[in-house]
Amino acid sequence: MTPKTDDTDTVSDPATRPCILCVAITGSVPTKADNPAVPVTVSEQIESTQEAFEAGAAIAHCHVRADDGTPTSDPERFARLKEGLERHCPGMIIQFSTGGRSGAGAARGGMLPLRPDMASLAVGSNNFPTRVYENPPDLVDWLAAEMIAHDVKPEIEAFDLSHIFQAVKMAGDGRIRGPLYVQFVMGVRNAMPVDRAVFDFYVATLRRLAPDAEWCGAGIGAGQILLNEWSIAAGGHTRT
Amino acid sequence: MTPKTDDTDTVSDPATRPCILCVAITGSVPTKADNPAVPVTVSEQIESTQEAFEAGAAIAHCHVRADDGTPTSDPERFARLKEGLERHCPGMIIQFSTGGRSGAGAARGGMLPLRPDMASLAVGSNNFPTRVYENPPDLVDWLAAEMIAHDVKPEIEAFDLSHIFQAVKMAGDGRIRGPLYVQFVMGVRNAMPVDRAVFDFYVATLRRLAPDAEWCGAGIGAGQILLNEWSIAAGGHTRT
Ligand SMILES: [Zn+2]
Ligand SMILES: [Zn+2]
Ligand SMILES: [Zn+2]
Ligand SMILES: [Zn+2]
Repeated sequence: MTPKTDDTDTVSDPATRPCILCVAITGSVPTKADNPAVPVTVSEQIESTQEAFEAGAAIAHCHVRADDGTPTSDPERFARLKEGLERHCPGMIIQFSTGGRSGAGAARGGMLPLRPDMASLAVGSNNFPTRVYENPPDLVDWLAAEMIAHDVKPEIEAFDLSHIFQAVKMAGDGRIRGPLYVQFVMGVRNAMPVDRAVFDFYVATLRRLAPDAEWCGAGIGAGQILLNEWSIAAGGHTRT
Repeated sequence: MTPKTDDTDTVSDPATRPCILCVAITGSVPTKADNPAVPVTVSEQIESTQEAFEAGAAIAHCHVRADDGTPTSDPERFARLKEGLERHCPGMIIQFSTGGRSGAGAARGGMLPLRPDMASLAVGSNNFPTRVYENPPDLVDWLAAEMIAHDVKPEIEAFDLSHIFQAVKMAGDGRIRGPLYVQFVMGVRNAMPVDRAVFDFYVATLRRLAPDAEWCGAGIGAGQILLNEWSIAAGGHTRT
């Protein structure tokens, strides 16, 4: 390795630092009726993730489904998925969703004792297309504490600007172990739309408040490719 | 009136355009135990508002309380307050709160048939110090429709950046009658803190998306004076 000179910083140069690809398998919304290719059973999920892993994805963002295809937070399903991924995708970072579509209250964190590498963590509330995405302060604090207890790295899901501030505050007072890993989510109806100026302000704000943080951009639906492009060009990681 | 020349715009020059002072009497949180000067009964509220009106306040942002001092959305109380304010503060703009601390669901809009000049309207959800400030999409749409039906001008309460986008979207598709009047609220714990760069970005974003909008800055607690200063200097209105 050549020594770093004063005026080059290979780590922060978007052209040379590594970009982490995170693959969101399954999600909590689409069904086989929407798209027969959506992997729903644990074995379908493992097969699909392995393809993504071989194509270069480094993080698997995981939801699980019940037998009837509806989202669940069932720890037993998460355990089977984790086992399969560890076997078929050795070295891949496993991230469990603690999102609110798959359960309510503490059930959302019931799989954290399985000690996945990472788990998603919403630190604020916002609107979704037809309802409130409820992340009350005490639930947020409990999920964060569970992640510390089980040595799980949170991926902060920032659906709005204040969520970045909240994550930085929680890292500052020890509720989250740093450095932060923040995902900017854009394109969910009734939450933050896909907007270039906001994206740039998100990046600048995180850099200002938490210079050692890493971040990733996730565009929902039609915004996915755009967020991939913006994120890669701006030196972030991205979600496919 | 002298004709406007090309390179002066007296309307948008912060130094010369009028600044609207909005006085928030009572609010929903403080009690007589916190501060004996808090006006709680309707007659105390009228007296206190009249002092503010004579001192130059143009908008009265109104909450009402039940006999035991707890917040309520009781239309009968709002009616008595409105009558008294119309008598003692002729020409003052009366704005009712439809905020979630004073009631739940449709009760929050039960006073809108009284046709106040304005009413507050939250268009998104966010966290408050100990709970979720829940403004589900269907409730937001219903409150907005009630305001159109009763010719009430909404003051959009922006507790986060996406709320500005949501207000602009609602004005664009006719759910809100323009031009928008948006209040930037900063300093509520677990929501958006007082931050100068965010304040500037709020102002710039609203100007970009809705050039004809008016806005007002409200700092909670220790941030109040700061937001007053920033707002007045930036050509906005402000809340005391
Ligand atoms: Zn997810
Ligand atoms: Zn990610
Ligand atoms: Zn209020
Ligand atoms: Zn105001």
